[in-house]
Amino acid sequence: MTDDLRARAEELDARDPLRARRDDFLPMGDVVAYLDGNSLGRPLRAAQEQLAAFVEGPWADRLIRSWDEGWMDWPSLVGDQLGRVCLGAAPGQVVVADSTTVLLYKLARAAVDARPDRREVVVGSDDFPTDRYVLEGIARERGLTLRWVDTDADLGVTLEHVAAAVGPATALVVLSHVSYRSSYVADLAAVAAVVHEAGALLLADLCHSVGVLPLSLDAWGVDLAVGCGYKYLNGGPGAPAFAYVRAGLDVQQPVWGWMGRADPFAMAPGYQPAPGTRQLVSGTPPVLAMVPLRAALDQLEQVGVAAVREKALQLTGFALALADAWLEPAGVRVASPRDPALRGGHVTLCREDFRAVTAALWERGVVPDFRNPDGIRIGLAPLSTSFAELYDGMAVLRDLAT
Amino acid sequence: MTDDLRARAEELDARDPLRARRDDFLPMGDVVAYLDGNSLGRPLRAAQEQLAAFVEGPWADRLIRSWDEGWMDWPSLVGDQLGRVCLGAAPGQVVVADSTTVLLYKLARAAVDARPDRREVVVGSDDFPTDRYVLEGIARERGLTLRWVDTDADLGVTLEHVAAAVGPATALVVLSHVSYRSSYVADLAAVAAVVHEAGALLLADLCHSVGVLPLSLDAWGVDLAVGCGYKYLNGGPGAPAFAYVRAGLDVQQPVWGWMGRADPFAMAPGYQPAPGTRQLVSGTPPVLAMVPLRAALDQLEQVGVAAVREKALQLTGFALALADAWLEPAGVRVASPRDPALRGGHVTLCREDFRAVTAALWERGVVPDFRNPDGIRIGLAPLSTSFAELYDGMAVLRDLAT
Repeated sequence: MTDDLRARAEELDARDPLRARRDDFLPMGDVVAYLDGNSLGRPLRAAQEQLAAFVEGPWADRLIRSWDEGWMDWPSLVGDQLGRVCLGAAPGQVVVADSTTVLLYKLARAAVDARPDRREVVVGSDDFPTDRYVLEGIARERGLTLRWVDTDADLGVTLEHVAAAVGPATALVVLSHVSYRSSYVADLAAVAAVVHEAGALLLADLCHSVGVLPLSLDAWGVDLAVGCGYKYLNGGPGAPAFAYVRAGLDVQQPVWGWMGRADPFAMAPGYQPAPGTRQLVSGTPPVLAMVPLRAALDQLEQVGVAAVREKALQLTGFALALADAWLEPAGVRVASPRDPALRGGHVTLCREDFRAVTAALWERGVVPDFRNPDGIRIGLAPLSTSFAELYDGMAVLRDLAT
Repeated sequence: MTDDLRARAEELDARDPLRARRDDFLPMGDVVAYLDGNSLGRPLRAAQEQLAAFVEGPWADRLIRSWDEGWMDWPSLVGDQLGRVCLGAAPGQVVVADSTTVLLYKLARAAVDARPDRREVVVGSDDFPTDRYVLEGIARERGLTLRWVDTDADLGVTLEHVAAAVGPATALVVLSHVSYRSSYVADLAAVAAVVHEAGALLLADLCHSVGVLPLSLDAWGVDLAVGCGYKYLNGGPGAPAFAYVRAGLDVQQPVWGWMGRADPFAMAPGYQPAPGTRQLVSGTPPVLAMVPLRAALDQLEQVGVAAVREKALQLTGFALALADAWLEPAGVRVASPRDPALRGGHVTLCREDFRAVTAALWERGVVPDFRNPDGIRIGLAPLSTSFAELYDGMAVLRDLAT
């Protein structure tokens, strides 16, 4: 059966319409299998080239003139590209700035400040830590109550959970589109409808879906969203994040900076928010740090997220087939949805000794990551990961775990 | 006299102990004179080399393992280097993160939240816009009163101004160390004493002094400080900023993120701030964006800020000599202190037509910046600027303005 699986990996690679895209990435030295593209995407060759060109040209040569020659617009320019390529968002609703955490703070504060008569925020008790911590801080400073949604760790916050939690006191629901643990995909359109029915706002955390799942934020009626630039978007460690605010939603974020003011270089007295999402930008935009992100968006725009999703489904499906064949007999539990429609770009496998197994995998050049208490996440970045690479990495896991 | 001044520029360059450092920077194409290093510092060759090496090595090759192999500590590692080289701050008090605006929000909120019985914040009405706007936002959300200090635009907020403004209602004084307009240098030690006498906290904005003036934050008794990475620190457009909190000051900032939590990878329920300044870090640190900043700090550490200050005094002094000889007869007003001890790294020259003159200068390859309503700032980055370059740039200004 092992030989059959190897042959299947080779066949899947041979038929993979994205296989040539792997050569767009820089080599990864002694790594046998990189299975953590959902935590830190690999760098494109174009990212390195464009960084060098950026330093020599717009920075070294044009210097301060580059602000007039384009840099000022990068938050919206890159935001609009992200909206078009990945988010299903018409222009003017997305900016690139800050970190996910800081943008989450800005948008969650903007939302609860826009609903002062409502005193509850709904969030999953197993949601990504920074989401929980940011909301705890906001709840404390604004005197709000957090209504925690407890869920099965193998799943995520479902429509039913949300429907049971929202009510007339709900100001805001914060929800991960794809669970960082289980890979469970929430139905954002259905959730948005339920949240709006209750008169509340929906803030989606897209960190684990942007760039790997097609999104239709405008069509789904999502109010607010944030996401990360360094996972499937390959923007590099600590890349700037992004924020989405749907057209027509009038909210104001609390960090009033000069770059989010109308006519910033007037440097005039009194803050006046810039029109639209530009007000979300507070300080000087992280222009240099957006260069790798732009290279990655260009690649994604050529390929299309639909093709990426198609390969993601095949990769996660193949990972499950390998897990079933090799690991389930050894007591490894699949902690991700079996239904492809409910599964994002990674697959989580659990066993109580997997912390130690992760360390042993790293020593063997197989690099997934580990999430407390017992999960190995097999993160599958479709543009950079081959089926043979997945097979090879899982084979080492099999050798260590059985 | 013009020939005398040319000879003086050549002599100053010949005697400049830092002259070889100019070769550390990438060339700037067709620019005759770059006189805006106080707005965007030029890139070091080392920054470009280290970016390429970073992308190929720690990012492409070590991948996610780099977080364990050092990246997690970069905010404090680079912060401590900055503290040692530039700030006069012992280890553990400085982190690199976010933008100046976001860090200003965090620290100002931390300060006013720590003094809930005091309802006033003192700030200069002509201070840098983002400082004013951030404080306006905080005042609105916390129900505080801003006590604006009006000053002569050619000077800045002095000790006397602060002494007259603080009182038993003052929670916080926010003060630029060097005025972005006039270049006036505040006496932070004396101001800190007056602020503390009133029972308030002092937050210093170091954007226009860090890297060009020796600072002694610990010795001066400054409570909190923020500053920018892309001016004299040459970190590139939108480089991460830094925050200082003096040892022993127990404050909590409002943006509670996973990277500022104790034991972040436990991903446990409930936010617990990390010890010390680490709690100031909210989201994933902007590691890639810190690479050019590290290259610049290495250069500054070799040279020492005292030598940079010495050359800054000579450069600004020479700029004033040129202005006196060439421009004052043409109605140009020097809007910076004559006393070298009160002057930072730039010199501001004003005339009502200087907006148009700035545009003409740019066309001639001379690049200062313009500040409303009538000021050309001659920014003099001592590590990258020669006296001949300053002479050449000012000569073009003379030709355009007389």
